[in-house]
Order: sequence, then structure tokens, then C-alpha cells
Amino acid sequence: MTVQRVTPEQRLEELGLELPAPRKAAGNYVSCVRTGNLLFTAGQGTDEWRGKLGRDLTVEEGYLAARQCMLNLLTVVKQEIGELSKVKRIVKVLGFVNSDPEFTNHPKVMNGASDLLVEIFGEKGKHGRSAVGMAQLPHNNAVEVEMIVEIEE
Amino acid sequence: MTVQRVTPEQRLEELGLELPAPRKAAGNYVSCVRTGNLLFTAGQGTDEWRGKLGRDLTVEEGYLAARQCMLNLLTVVKQEIGELSKVKRIVKVLGFVNSDPEFTNHPKVMNGASDLLVEIFGEKGKHGRSAVGMAQLPHNNAVEVEMIVEIEE
Amino acid sequence: MTVQRVTPEQRLEELGLELPAPRKAAGNYVSCVRTGNLLFTAGQGTDEWRGKLGRDLTVEEGYLAARQCMLNLLTVVKQEIGELSKVKRIVKVLGFVNSDPEFTNHPKVMNGASDLLVEIFGEKGKHGRSAVGMAQLPHNNAVEVEMIVEIEE
Repeated sequence: MTVQRVTPEQRLEELGLELPAPRKAAGNYVSCVRTGNLLFTAGQGTDEWRGKLGRDLTVEEGYLAARQCMLNLLTVVKQEIGELSKVKRIVKVLGFVNSDPEFTNHPKVMNGASDLLVEIFGEKGKHGRSAVGMAQLPHNNAVEVEMIVEIEE
Repeated sequence: MTVQRVTPEQRLEELGLELPAPRKAAGNYVSCVRTGNLLFTAGQGTDEWRGKLGRDLTVEEGYLAARQCMLNLLTVVKQEIGELSKVKRIVKVLGFVNSDPEFTNHPKVMNGASDLLVEIFGEKGKHGRSAVGMAQLPHNNAVEVEMIVEIEE
Repeated sequence: MTVQRVTPEQRLEELGLELPAPRKAAGNYVSCVRTGNLLFTAGQGTDEWRGKLGRDLTVEEGYLAARQCMLNLLTVVKQEIGELSKVKRIVKVLGFVNSDPEFTNHPKVMNGASDLLVEIFGEKGKHGRSAVGMAQLPHNNAVEVEMIVEIEE
């Protein structure tokens, strides 16, 4: 019996999503550093969504923004390790949400990033997470996300 | 000569504190991920304390909120490793404080979490820390805390 | 042929900069914890620069504040490992910028920290980074920076 394994890249295609081109770093830093079998990414925003949740954007728009940030992060990870199937575990996600001082729905926004990880990686995609409300973000980004990924040795 | 060692759980009891029941994650994520001998926790808030420091809550109330967040985190860690005596070192604590734009007393608030760690774990509980002021937090939480813990192999 | 290697400490001197004296922790925590070959630092602010970017301070002043935070962090790292030449890689920098709700130039501010790392460590200094806008910081600090450093075994 052969087992047909769907790769993360195939899974993205099934979902009608594609990895965007790598984005230029906004400052004097790099998008990802590997130490041992851990990747620490820089924060990724998205050019598509600007503004504050609770003032300029709906929760649904924030969800899409967080998903796009995660697609940008997956581009970074793929660039670093070649194939997303080398991901052993998504360890930790930190989600920065550009927030009006009274906006409190950060978890639903950040599910845009988290749902994608679980859809793509299954059990390996189940991660720890913090979702927090920022006074502002670079370029008035709606969301910025960074993560820690364990990869196969 | 025998050495009587007080376990972290016994120490909690001596302090008149108890570990709360595990809380449900606020989104599509898990409370803790282990990679090698490190645990990365998700952020933990507390249902007992809502509102902004410097507007709705006093520093003393924030201290209690941060302590409760840490108790919630210790529940998560115990769930992952069984016995808190397997903690080798508390490596890093990141404390998010829901802040009025003029509130600047985050360190005293976060000492609610840090004091508890040192009371429970002694030298092993001495951790690096950042304490920062947020525009908002999920569910108007007063404080949210995440941490990195090194455990015995 | 002999290769003259300039140490990070010599490079600092060439730049006319010097490592400040260690600062006292603002709460019940330590400045740095080593786990394996990784250092996790506590957040470091700077006494020289207080106030919010976009209201009290210019981007140029924020740049200097971020650089001073990084000098404070290098003091912490040197205290931990003795010689900065034992730094194998700056893995990750997280920059917290005290921000007016409309300030969006966090990357230029945080380049004050990042430029210094690259000037001192060259390729080893190239790090992942997030730069985010906070509602406030302890003691009204303009900038606070924490980092993760890989060191030689």
C-alpha cells in the first residue's frame, strides 16, 4: 500500500492560495535566522491591509490581513529551507494587531494566521500564540506576525 | 544525611495559592509547545482582571492580575511536564500590560508574575523579562504573559 | 600571512562608542539567561531618552535611543560571556517603540539598534527583527529592546 502524502505546497494550491514573492526588509535586518533546528523569523506585515482594527478595519478584514502575513512568513520559511515539508513543528506565533484602544477581538483576527497554519500543516501546525494590541505598526500595517519554527535536522 | 526538598507544588501550597484549572485557548492554537528541552507557552491572561492600568486598575490590582496570569502559566507547564520540579530554569518572561498611554509603572505590575516565580523556584526562577504597555489586549485583559522554560531532559 | 582580526570591542572603540556600565534591573528579574548556546536578554531601555515617538521625540532622536538600548544590551551580553567575539550570531531583535497612535516610522528608529549590530559584528550581526509601536513603556522610555543571541559552545 502506498501512502499519498499531500505536501504543504499542494495543500496551499488546493486552498486556492499561493505564496507571494519575498518582500524587502523594512530596515537593516534579515527575514529569518536559523539557529540549530529553530528558525526565528522577522515580523511580516502585508501591503494589502493598512489601518487600525476597531477603527479602520473590520474583524473580517483583520482576519484576511493576518492570513496574508502568514503567507508572507511561509514564503520566508520556504526560502530558508527549500520545502515546507521540512517543517517539523510550528512552535510559536506572536501576532501584533494595530488596535484602537477599545478593540478587544485580537484572537479572531489572529485566527487568520493560525487557521492557515493548521490547514496547511495539520498537527505540526498547532502552535502556541500570543495576540496583542499595538498603539501602531510600521507603515500603519494592520497586522504584523513573527514566528518560531522547528525544522527537520 | 537526607535533604528534604520542597517541591514547587508544596511551595505553592505554603503560600496559600493553588493552580487553577486549565483555560480554553482563545483561538486556534495550543497553550504550550515543546521543542528540544524548551517550552514556549502561549500568552495567558486572566478572567479575574479586566481593564487598563492607569485608568481602570491600580498598580496593586495589576500586580494581582500578573500573578494570576503566572499561576495560569504554571498550570500549563505542569500539564505539559507532569511535575514542576522538572523545571530547570525559567528563561524568559514577556509581560503585556493593558496600558493607558500615560501609565509607566509596568515593572511593578509584572513583579506580580516575577515574584511568584522566584518564590516558587528560587534560583531556577530567576528569568529575563520585558514588561511593555499595550494599546489593548484580548477581552480587555489587564495583563497577558508568555514565557520560555527550560526543562530537565 | 597573518590575518588581523578586529574584535567587536575594538570596533566599538573605532566608532567612538563605549559600553556603558550595567544597569540595575527595573524589577525582580535578571538581565540575561543562557540556555544551551542561546542567550535570551531582558528588555533594555535607556535613561537618556524618554517620551513618545511622533509626539515628544524625532525619528533621529529615536534612532539614538535605539542605539543606546543596543549598547546597554551589548554590556549585558559581554557580562555574560566575557568577550563579544564569542557571539556566533545575533538571532533575533524585538524592538518596542513608545509611539503616538499615528507614528509609523518604527523601522527607521530601530535601525539605530540594527545598524550598530551590523557595524560591530558584520555578517554575524545580521538578525531577524520586529519593530512595533507601544502604548507606553516603563518609565516613559522611548525605546526598549530585547534580543536572542547564539554564542560559541
